[in-house]
Amino acid sequence: MYSIALHGGAGTLARHLFTPEKELEYSIALRLALEEGDAILKSKGSALDAVEATIKVLEDSPLFNAGKGAVFTHDKKHELDASIMWGKDLSAGAVAGVSGIRNPISLSRLVMEKSEHVLLCGKGAEAFAVSKGIMMEDESYFYTDLRWQQLLQVIDEEKSFLDHSVNPHHPTYSPDEKKFGTVGAVALDVNGNLAAGTSTGGMTNKRWGRAGDSPIIGAGTYANNETCAISCTGHGEFFIRSVVAYDVSCLMEYGGLSLEQACRKVVNEKLVKRGGEGGLIAIDSKGNICLPFNSEGMYRAWKTADSEIFTAIF
Amino acid sequence: MYSIALHGGAGTLARHLFTPEKELEYSIALRLALEEGDAILKSKGSALDAVEATIKVLEDSPLFNAGKGAVFTHDKKHELDASIMWGKDLSAGAVAGVSGIRNPISLSRLVMEKSEHVLLCGKGAEAFAVSKGIMMEDESYFYTDLRWQQLLQVIDEEKSFLDHSVNPHHPTYSPDEKKFGTVGAVALDVNGNLAAGTSTGGMTNKRWGRAGDSPIIGAGTYANNETCAISCTGHGEFFIRSVVAYDVSCLMEYGGLSLEQACRKVVNEKLVKRGGEGGLIAIDSKGNICLPFNSEGMYRAWKTADSEIFTAIF
Repeated sequence: MYSIALHGGAGTLARHLFTPEKELEYSIALRLALEEGDAILKSKGSALDAVEATIKVLEDSPLFNAGKGAVFTHDKKHELDASIMWGKDLSAGAVAGVSGIRNPISLSRLVMEKSEHVLLCGKGAEAFAVSKGIMMEDESYFYTDLRWQQLLQVIDEEKSFLDHSVNPHHPTYSPDEKKFGTVGAVALDVNGNLAAGTSTGGMTNKRWGRAGDSPIIGAGTYANNETCAISCTGHGEFFIRSVVAYDVSCLMEYGGLSLEQACRKVVNEKLVKRGGEGGLIAIDSKGNICLPFNSEGMYRAWKTADSEIFTAIF
Repeated sequence: MYSIALHGGAGTLARHLFTPEKELEYSIALRLALEEGDAILKSKGSALDAVEATIKVLEDSPLFNAGKGAVFTHDKKHELDASIMWGKDLSAGAVAGVSGIRNPISLSRLVMEKSEHVLLCGKGAEAFAVSKGIMMEDESYFYTDLRWQQLLQVIDEEKSFLDHSVNPHHPTYSPDEKKFGTVGAVALDVNGNLAAGTSTGGMTNKRWGRAGDSPIIGAGTYANNETCAISCTGHGEFFIRSVVAYDVSCLMEYGGLSLEQACRKVVNEKLVKRGGEGGLIAIDSKGNICLPFNSEGMYRAWKTADSEIFTAIF
């Protein structure tokens, strides 16, 4: 028995402007990423390997706000955040504000396994990457025309948006634009181990070294074999203040709620009451999957050992 | 009714080498800081103001590993972390890896109140500080001979220590050296509002932009009027992975434990089992104070509206 789920971000996706071609393009990308993790789990690999491999595919895609498809900062650069956690022993690794890293999720895993630390930031994290033999990418690797146009639009409007606003009348508008761009994966392997990971480029036009919940263990990512594995996507500031990922785990462990009850309570009650838009993906130690969101849509895919692959956006 | 408590770090304090003069010096410093917060609470000021004012005194003291007394990084600099949270509305602010900031706790409060964000990192956080009129300090402000000697010793031993190791035979040894240097404060004001804050220089000889639990809401700092206010000090990596501050709150809210039961469970059971050394200070919405630690000592002081000021180290 195993389970795996992924997300490619949540937010105000303009459903009525999503062409069948666009939907298919995203659906294929989500499916390809899930297949990568599924193959590992099917051959009795670890949830940790499956989560990392799945997220790498999403990071390498220009469609999602992480790795290759990351949004531009105010300084016309890319600052990436990621984290990963292994539910077997509660080990964890994370990086915040790193540039030139093709796969921040893999760097997070290196932090977890090859350092005494959990969280490394900025230039220091990049120096750690180099010390471990990671090749640094040129900024040009991260250039995509869509993200560049989004930055110009946001600067044009002199306003800082979360990943992107939805203004269907703007000339650069594209229906796949979303407010909360993040990718993540959670998995349960055949040995009963849970893992979770999250990766993001953050907010379009972000400045001041802003970090959201993605690199924060307990907020954007959490995994514990006793309860669940969680990866979040949404308005990061609200997710940090509500310690969202660990809240789901605590509601299960201390409150006696099921995975689904805990997820609904956090995403559809507490976050909604506090104004925090977004969603999360969750798997419990029995392989149950829950994918709640309080925004218009969330790119997602999921599969159990016996099921086919499902993908959905709305 | 109000309550306030502070800590000045926890760790392996060498009790047998603490002279009465040294104890008195620390006791006076702890008392001065607590008096600052107490005066605010006594005159019906907010817990948030009391927490900030108390921590500023500790940051300005060369005795504690925060602000003026911060340890040196591997690059012979100072990189400071801090966070603050307001239990009334769950707003929060934090900075990680900032240099040249005299009072990181006040910058955290600015992030909370004057930005849309919760966590700002490194150079970006410094640029935010300048944009808000904060004067940057020269690196020389943070120089203290004790911390410099500690760095030289650690480099000499080619090993990264947490704030400082205890080697009483080393020529630079001082009994006030401790492994986990951090300062923090928690308070309940007469209006029933809770606040918590934490500030640190991190680890002596730290590199790679390492951040511990101090700037992480949910790990090092948490406040919620419904439950409690918490500030942690200890081996940061373990505190992040255990989401310590929010864990106490969840054990109260979902598990029905009292403040003391929740604190003991987290600090003396869960953290001990996981190998996480340190402690925390906690106040609940009724004004109860709990100051648990699983290390040899924790610099601390506390007071309620009707009591005198207590200080303790072991």
